[in-house]
Amino acid sequence: MKMIIDTDAGIDDAEAIMMALANPHVEIVAITCVSGNTRAKQVTRNVLRILNICNRLDIPVYLGSEHCLAGDDWKKDGFHGSDGLGDAPDPENTPDESHIKSEMAVNALIRYVNEMKGELTLVTLGPLTNIALAMRLDADFSSKLKEMIVMGGNYQGRGNIVLGAEFNFYFDPVAAFAVLNECQCPVTIATWETCCDYDNMPSYEWFKKWSNQPTEKAKFIRRIREQQINKSLIPIEGRYFRSCDTVAMAAVLLPDVIVESVKKYATVELNGTLTRGQMVIDWREKLKKSHNVNIIIKINRDLYLDLMWKALE
Amino acid sequence: MKMIIDTDAGIDDAEAIMMALANPHVEIVAITCVSGNTRAKQVTRNVLRILNICNRLDIPVYLGSEHCLAGDDWKKDGFHGSDGLGDAPDPENTPDESHIKSEMAVNALIRYVNEMKGELTLVTLGPLTNIALAMRLDADFSSKLKEMIVMGGNYQGRGNIVLGAEFNFYFDPVAAFAVLNECQCPVTIATWETCCDYDNMPSYEWFKKWSNQPTEKAKFIRRIREQQINKSLIPIEGRYFRSCDTVAMAAVLLPDVIVESVKKYATVELNGTLTRGQMVIDWREKLKKSHNVNIIIKINRDLYLDLMWKALE
Amino acid sequence: MKMIIDTDAGIDDAEAIMMALANPHVEIVAITCVSGNTRAKQVTRNVLRILNICNRLDIPVYLGSEHCLAGDDWKKDGFHGSDGLGDAPDPENTPDESHIKSEMAVNALIRYVNEMKGELTLVTLGPLTNIALAMRLDADFSSKLKEMIVMGGNYQGRGNIVLGAEFNFYFDPVAAFAVLNECQCPVTIATWETCCDYDNMPSYEWFKKWSNQPTEKAKFIRRIREQQINKSLIPIEGRYFRSCDTVAMAAVLLPDVIVESVKKYATVELNGTLTRGQMVIDWREKLKKSHNVNIIIKINRDLYLDLMWKALE
Amino acid sequence: MKMIIDTDAGIDDAEAIMMALANPHVEIVAITCVSGNTRAKQVTRNVLRILNICNRLDIPVYLGSEHCLAGDDWKKDGFHGSDGLGDAPDPENTPDESHIKSEMAVNALIRYVNEMKGELTLVTLGPLTNIALAMRLDADFSSKLKEMIVMGGNYQGRGNIVLGAEFNFYFDPVAAFAVLNECQCPVTIATWETCCDYDNMPSYEWFKKWSNQPTEKAKFIRRIREQQINKSLIPIEGRYFRSCDTVAMAAVLLPDVIVESVKKYATVELNGTLTRGQMVIDWREKLKKSHNVNIIIKINRDLYLDLMWKALE
Ligand SMILES: [Ca+2]
Ligand SMILES: [Ca+2]
Ligand SMILES: [Ca+2]
Ligand SMILES: [Ca+2]
Repeated sequence: MKMIIDTDAGIDDAEAIMMALANPHVEIVAITCVSGNTRAKQVTRNVLRILNICNRLDIPVYLGSEHCLAGDDWKKDGFHGSDGLGDAPDPENTPDESHIKSEMAVNALIRYVNEMKGELTLVTLGPLTNIALAMRLDADFSSKLKEMIVMGGNYQGRGNIVLGAEFNFYFDPVAAFAVLNECQCPVTIATWETCCDYDNMPSYEWFKKWSNQPTEKAKFIRRIREQQINKSLIPIEGRYFRSCDTVAMAAVLLPDVIVESVKKYATVELNGTLTRGQMVIDWREKLKKSHNVNIIIKINRDLYLDLMWKALE
Repeated sequence: MKMIIDTDAGIDDAEAIMMALANPHVEIVAITCVSGNTRAKQVTRNVLRILNICNRLDIPVYLGSEHCLAGDDWKKDGFHGSDGLGDAPDPENTPDESHIKSEMAVNALIRYVNEMKGELTLVTLGPLTNIALAMRLDADFSSKLKEMIVMGGNYQGRGNIVLGAEFNFYFDPVAAFAVLNECQCPVTIATWETCCDYDNMPSYEWFKKWSNQPTEKAKFIRRIREQQINKSLIPIEGRYFRSCDTVAMAAVLLPDVIVESVKKYATVELNGTLTRGQMVIDWREKLKKSHNVNIIIKINRDLYLDLMWKALE
Repeated sequence: MKMIIDTDAGIDDAEAIMMALANPHVEIVAITCVSGNTRAKQVTRNVLRILNICNRLDIPVYLGSEHCLAGDDWKKDGFHGSDGLGDAPDPENTPDESHIKSEMAVNALIRYVNEMKGELTLVTLGPLTNIALAMRLDADFSSKLKEMIVMGGNYQGRGNIVLGAEFNFYFDPVAAFAVLNECQCPVTIATWETCCDYDNMPSYEWFKKWSNQPTEKAKFIRRIREQQINKSLIPIEGRYFRSCDTVAMAAVLLPDVIVESVKKYATVELNGTLTRGQMVIDWREKLKKSHNVNIIIKINRDLYLDLMWKALE
Repeated sequence: MKMIIDTDAGIDDAEAIMMALANPHVEIVAITCVSGNTRAKQVTRNVLRILNICNRLDIPVYLGSEHCLAGDDWKKDGFHGSDGLGDAPDPENTPDESHIKSEMAVNALIRYVNEMKGELTLVTLGPLTNIALAMRLDADFSSKLKEMIVMGGNYQGRGNIVLGAEFNFYFDPVAAFAVLNECQCPVTIATWETCCDYDNMPSYEWFKKWSNQPTEKAKFIRRIREQQINKSLIPIEGRYFRSCDTVAMAAVLLPDVIVESVKKYATVELNGTLTRGQMVIDWREKLKKSHNVNIIIKINRDLYLDLMWKALE
């Protein structure tokens, strides 16, 4: 499987990228960076750190859009630390910015889909700014993708960053709106509620065992997760350990991970005071539109945790 | 239990009112009418028909607000027919409008709560216009109620009249916003999703048995439901017979009907393009506000159907 | 002329009320109070102070709505001081609250228009909450008025309290929307831009002469304007002394005050982020609606200042 | 003066481009095309027709974004005809699409500003989509421009395409918001009201004389204006002949054309129902932001008409 990952790395982005890197059937063609959990420029540094830990600096990394489409100021929520990776110490020799390609992410995305028409799987782990931009510069961009897997949105009106909206969609609602309404390849979505369903998620105890594997990768994860644990940002009881981006990645790496899903027409609220960025679903087919997303409802936790485990081996 | 019912009757309103009338422990102090399923004036006629069938024309009926607070045009959705009661023939001697009290509904509401401070249960089966108006004319209105039960809103972003909102809240979002944010008595809500959960609902077969009881009341229900069945507006397979207003009424008549509920702070989106009128819930207590609603999640169907059955006996 | 004044008094409200009281052809039937420059309850006290200074405590005063229709919290802007009248000392024997009528303002408004059908001129100097409420309780309320004069709104997108909206309309946009869209009597509007046009306004020097008249009324105005001058809230150079509510009052007392006006269909933006509460005008008759307002553009300053002068004599 | 023109040509765009071509001091480096009056692809054809008439096919033409940023459907208003140039016959040998450069407009824009840092004047005659995209792909794009002249927006809340907004800003409000809020070079705006002020505009009689010059260019203008005249879309009495884009072009070609202008902070309403796309101005410096636009209020009509005249000579 040929894959491009668009990311705002992000702790769970790191985990998802490592899951993909650990999979023998995946060829990561490129990683494109976008503002979200931290600024796009810092995201490129974070991606280099992740690739370095995994000895995969050969994968090209591209800098994408610094601002969301409307250009609102970058909104910090602190969950991933000020640098996006838990403000952890960085003892490794993290590669410098000379490893970042000079081509702009959007142009690289367009070039790759043209070079590998119909072959590329696009996994988006952050706001959809780069993807919407690529669709504006090349109106046929999305039709040349094999499929797209998106972490973002919500299907029951539950929010995290604000009452009604999930972070990635809230951060750039205009881009999410454009991508959902215009994308010409199949789109699968792992939403916030998918990742909140405790039936889908492992326990904190599992997390501890997982991140205590005797590998460099596990050590890295322990380090970037440490601040969240110390600050009690993640619950340590019940099945509430959450790594949203890995759910999306697992679903594309192993389709059997998806146990229940629903195909609907979904769009994005652009104007609400409390619901700006909320994914809105036409459950009753009032608009008579074809479905544009496959929303993941239930996952096979065993298969998911197996993929998680292998990510750090 | 002393009860005032505010209604936009409405077929399921009729069923809910009959359920209350059938209950020996309930004293219906007054019925106030509001625009919603049909115009307020027509609602008063419908209520008289219902009371007449049940030989309870002694209950005072009041005309309330013709328009929602912002005064948008009245929106027809056709589900309840053009007269709100399925455009059914009306062979009975329906009482004329002289039976409607001359006092305005809002003033009657304020008078009753002052006469029976802390004793009144208010059940709202339509848009919340009258209640919001009463709160504006008497800032302490809601603090003098014992409790309020509301049919309206949604807790998972599912809509009926539009993609994101339930009819009663969509019809007057400003009133719903005011009532949720300012009400000073306990508020219990039966939402659209509560009434969509097939575990909570009876089957069409049950409906047929129920409405075939050999009583005048059952004959009346058959008649006002007929158009919906003929026009295939309600599904006749599966557990999808739905009578929203009776869920709210059952929950107040017999608290054991509520099997699962959740207390949260809920408010209403006033500005969305797709979500105007959506109930928005602070699931994660981001706003640090006290809960203002008790949202019914699951009901005991057996108890509910028992109350339904008795309504037509 | 039989007049009811609805006010959020307010310093310029005080000046407008005094202008009306000074006019031999006006009979002030009642004054109704609404939240705006200060809370409704404080407004009633302010009105009693004004009436007391003018020896007109015989005029009945009514308490209206404490909250705007949607019930947003009361927004303070400080311009009129914390009590609405410049936090000035109050050496007079201001009458106590027993002078406030027990009837609610909205019911009093409805009663008066029914008693004096077609005879009453309604002058609104604050948010339109009470008027919208009266229209909801009595759908024919506005058709029984002779005319309405409104201080509020804007016709060139200029705001004061926020970038795009004028205070009275911003404070209760839902009420302003309802009144403009449903009012069945002629409506004349003195907007924010009307009162900002320096051709329409007097100079600070004029204000000093005006408020230095040797009368109790002038002394009162000096006292309640003092804080604004000390805090440099009003400019003391150029023709920028502004008393918005008196422009509306002058226009109704002496129609020749209006030199230029334009009849258009106007409505109110309910949903904007920057423009919530803005008056929006159909300059090019795109909607093919009849005009619903007469917007005052230019006034005769000499006639206006003459009425101002007499207010304090 | 080195100039790039971004256009949605458009009849008045044609006139503005011809005005620039007629000016001996202007070097038109490139013309970039965007959807607006007609679709981007058709715009490229229209630009080729205009350049052909003027024998300037040497100027490179680039295809830009087909959709506005949020991707709303293309909105037709018919004013410029279905092809954007009055559906006029096209007897000339209009060049085929092989004359369109293969480089995307956004990339060309970025390349040019980097090749000619600080030297380029950007004149935008359509929606700001291309410019916003260039700012997203190169965060320093606008800082490398000498200046930008924009036809678009409004400064008194008057709209054309809708009640509250001007066409170019309404067509892509997100782009207009981004450009106004982030542009790092001086921005001058010719707004809708600037072009509506009859003091600024010529009469229909002048238009007839102007377009009856015995030149190919004048013949072309007569032809593309004919449909508007036949359909009575433009008034033929009074000083109401309006050519918005030429006002912006004239202001940059000859700064003395600007007789009155005002520097303010301006932004764009993204969420209004009636005011989406309205330019909102901080007249009273409430936000304490530096000014970001120079709004043209009055122009010197004689100088303007002289430039117009020369455009067709
Ligand atoms: Ca992420
Ligand atoms: Ca109902
Ligand atoms: Ca006032
Ligand atoms: Ca144009």
